[in-house]
Amino acid sequence: CTTSTEMYFFTDAVVDAVLAVGARAVVTPGIISAPGWDRLGTWEQMRDEVSARIDAHGLRSGPGERIEVGYGPHAAYTLPAAALASVAEHAAQRDALVHIHVAESAQEDAHVRAEFGSVPALLESSGLLAGRLLAAHAVQLSDDDVALLGRRGAGVAHCPGSNGKLAAGIARIPALRAAGARVGLGTDGPASGDDLDLWHQARLAGLLARLGTGDAAGLTAADLLLLATRDGAAALGRTDIGSLEAGSWADLVHVDLQDPAFVGPDDDAQLLSNLVWAGGARAVRDVWVAGEQVLDAGEPTRVDAASALADVRAVARRLRAAV
Amino acid sequence: CTTSTEMYFFTDAVVDAVLAVGARAVVTPGIISAPGWDRLGTWEQMRDEVSARIDAHGLRSGPGERIEVGYGPHAAYTLPAAALASVAEHAAQRDALVHIHVAESAQEDAHVRAEFGSVPALLESSGLLAGRLLAAHAVQLSDDDVALLGRRGAGVAHCPGSNGKLAAGIARIPALRAAGARVGLGTDGPASGDDLDLWHQARLAGLLARLGTGDAAGLTAADLLLLATRDGAAALGRTDIGSLEAGSWADLVHVDLQDPAFVGPDDDAQLLSNLVWAGGARAVRDVWVAGEQVLDAGEPTRVDAASALADVRAVARRLRAAV
Repeated sequence: CTTSTEMYFFTDAVVDAVLAVGARAVVTPGIISAPGWDRLGTWEQMRDEVSARIDAHGLRSGPGERIEVGYGPHAAYTLPAAALASVAEHAAQRDALVHIHVAESAQEDAHVRAEFGSVPALLESSGLLAGRLLAAHAVQLSDDDVALLGRRGAGVAHCPGSNGKLAAGIARIPALRAAGARVGLGTDGPASGDDLDLWHQARLAGLLARLGTGDAAGLTAADLLLLATRDGAAALGRTDIGSLEAGSWADLVHVDLQDPAFVGPDDDAQLLSNLVWAGGARAVRDVWVAGEQVLDAGEPTRVDAASALADVRAVARRLRAAV
Repeated sequence: CTTSTEMYFFTDAVVDAVLAVGARAVVTPGIISAPGWDRLGTWEQMRDEVSARIDAHGLRSGPGERIEVGYGPHAAYTLPAAALASVAEHAAQRDALVHIHVAESAQEDAHVRAEFGSVPALLESSGLLAGRLLAAHAVQLSDDDVALLGRRGAGVAHCPGSNGKLAAGIARIPALRAAGARVGLGTDGPASGDDLDLWHQARLAGLLARLGTGDAAGLTAADLLLLATRDGAAALGRTDIGSLEAGSWADLVHVDLQDPAFVGPDDDAQLLSNLVWAGGARAVRDVWVAGEQVLDAGEPTRVDAASALADVRAVARRLRAAV
C-alpha cells in the first residue's frame, strides 16, 4: 500500500510529485477521444506520447524504480474499438500495464453490451486481456464476464468508496477472486474518493462484499489486508512489491500498536481484525519506500507538511475563485 | 455526537464509565426473555429494575444531567408481545425512552411479519410508537412500515456499519426521513461496530443511501452531519442537546482545521464536504460536555489514556485465555 496507480494527464507534474514525496507509482497517462477532450490531442498522439516516454526512459525509472509508466485508455465508451486494439499492441510490445475503466456505470455497461457483447468481451477481442491489464471498477459484470476476467487472470482495481459515492453499484469481488481475477483496492480520484485513504477502502470492501452476497462470513480481515498489499501488487502484474521477502523492494508501513484500535496486539487474529476493522491512517507512524524512510513519526521526511497544505489551499482558493 | 445510547447489562458499570470519562449517555438496560438469558432474571424483573432506577434517581441525573435512563426491551423476537406492551406502559408513565432492535435481519422480519404483520405494526399495537421510541437498525421495512414509523415520528438509530458487517441489508434512510421518522446514527456494539467511530457511520450512511436508491445526489454532506448531531438528538426525543443554542447543554467538538482533510476551511460548502467525507477522529482536538472540557488537544482530561488502554488489554487477554 505504498504504490498508487494514477490515470491522469499532466504526467510530468504527477511524476515530479511522486518523486518529491518519495512514493511509488504506476503512472498511466490518459488516452481519450471524447467531446471536449480533443484540445489535449488525438488518441493516437496520447498513445504515442506514452510509448515515447517508455522508449526514452524504460518501463521503470527513478530512484528505487519508483516510477513505472503504463497506458491509460480511459474507457470503452470514450475510445473507438480500434484505439483499444492499438493500445494493446503498443503495450504488449513494451510489457506495459494498461489501466482502463471497466463497466463502472449501468449506462456504460448497457451501451457497450449492446454493441460488443460486454466491456470484458470487447477487451478480449481487442487483445487487452492477453497482456497486463488493470480493470478499474468492474461493477456491472455478468457471470460470463466474471468468468472471462478470471480465466485471463485480469487485474481489477476495486474502488468501493467511489462506487458508493457515485451510486454505481456493488462489484462482485468474492466472485471475481474465486474465478481467478487479481483484485486490489483503489480510492479513485478525490472527486469521488475524498480522503484517498486505502484503509477506508479495505473496510468498505468487506462491508460491501457482505451486503452484495448476503454472506456475513464473506471476505475476512486477512483477505482485506491482502487486497491492500499482495493482491494489489498482483493486480498491477508486479511481483517486486506487495510482500516482504528477499528480492522485493523494502516498501514498509509501520503501524503504532499503542493506538487504542489495538486491544490484542499479542494475538495474531485479534491484531489483524483490529488492524483492518478499527485501524486507520491515524495509526501509521513510519513509512519506507525502497528502503528509504519517507514518513517519520507521522511527518513526511521529504516535504514540509504545513507548507504543502498551504500550497494546496492556495490552489483550491484560486480554483473556487475561477468557477 | 457527544451522547451515546447504550443497551446493555451491568448498568452500574456503564454509568460509572460514562461519568468517569465525562461523556453523556442514555442508558437503556436490556430486557430480554430468551434461551440462555434467564440467569439474568425474568423480563418483569428487568423492567422493574429500570423503573426503580428512574423512580429513585429521576429520568436524568449526574453532573450536567449526563445520565438518562430508559428501557431496552431487546427485540420483538426475544420478548413476548405482552412484555412490549408492559414496557410501553412503564415508559409512558415516566416519559422514558424505549430502545429496541427493529427488523434488523431478514429472519427476524419474516418471523414477526408472519405473526404480527410486521415489527413496526407490533410496536404500534403494543403502544410503543405512541411514546419516545428509538428503533435500532430498522432495515427490513415495507412501504407501510416506513409510512407508519414516519407518521409516528419514531426515532431510528441507523447503524450502517453493523448492517454491512452482519450482511443485514441497507436501511431505507432517505424514505424514512421523507416520511417523518427522526434518524440518527449508531455504531452498534464493538462486535459489529469495531471502532465505534461515528464519522465512519456518517460516511457509510451516505454511501449506502446512494447504493440503496441508485441516486448519487442522495444524502448530502449537510444531511449526514445532521444525522450525527441534531437529528441524532431528535431520534432520542431530546431538544436540550444536538444543536448550539441558548438553553442547550454546551456539548461541543472542536475539529482541527489544520488537518490535511480540509482544503477549503474558508468556504462553508467545501468545509462541510471535507468534514464529512474526509474528516475523522484524527482531526478531533477538543471536546466539551455540559461545558466541561473532557478532551484537550487529543488527550482525555479525566482518565489517563495509556493506563485505560493497558486495562482494556489486560481484560482482553483474560477473556481470550478463558475461551
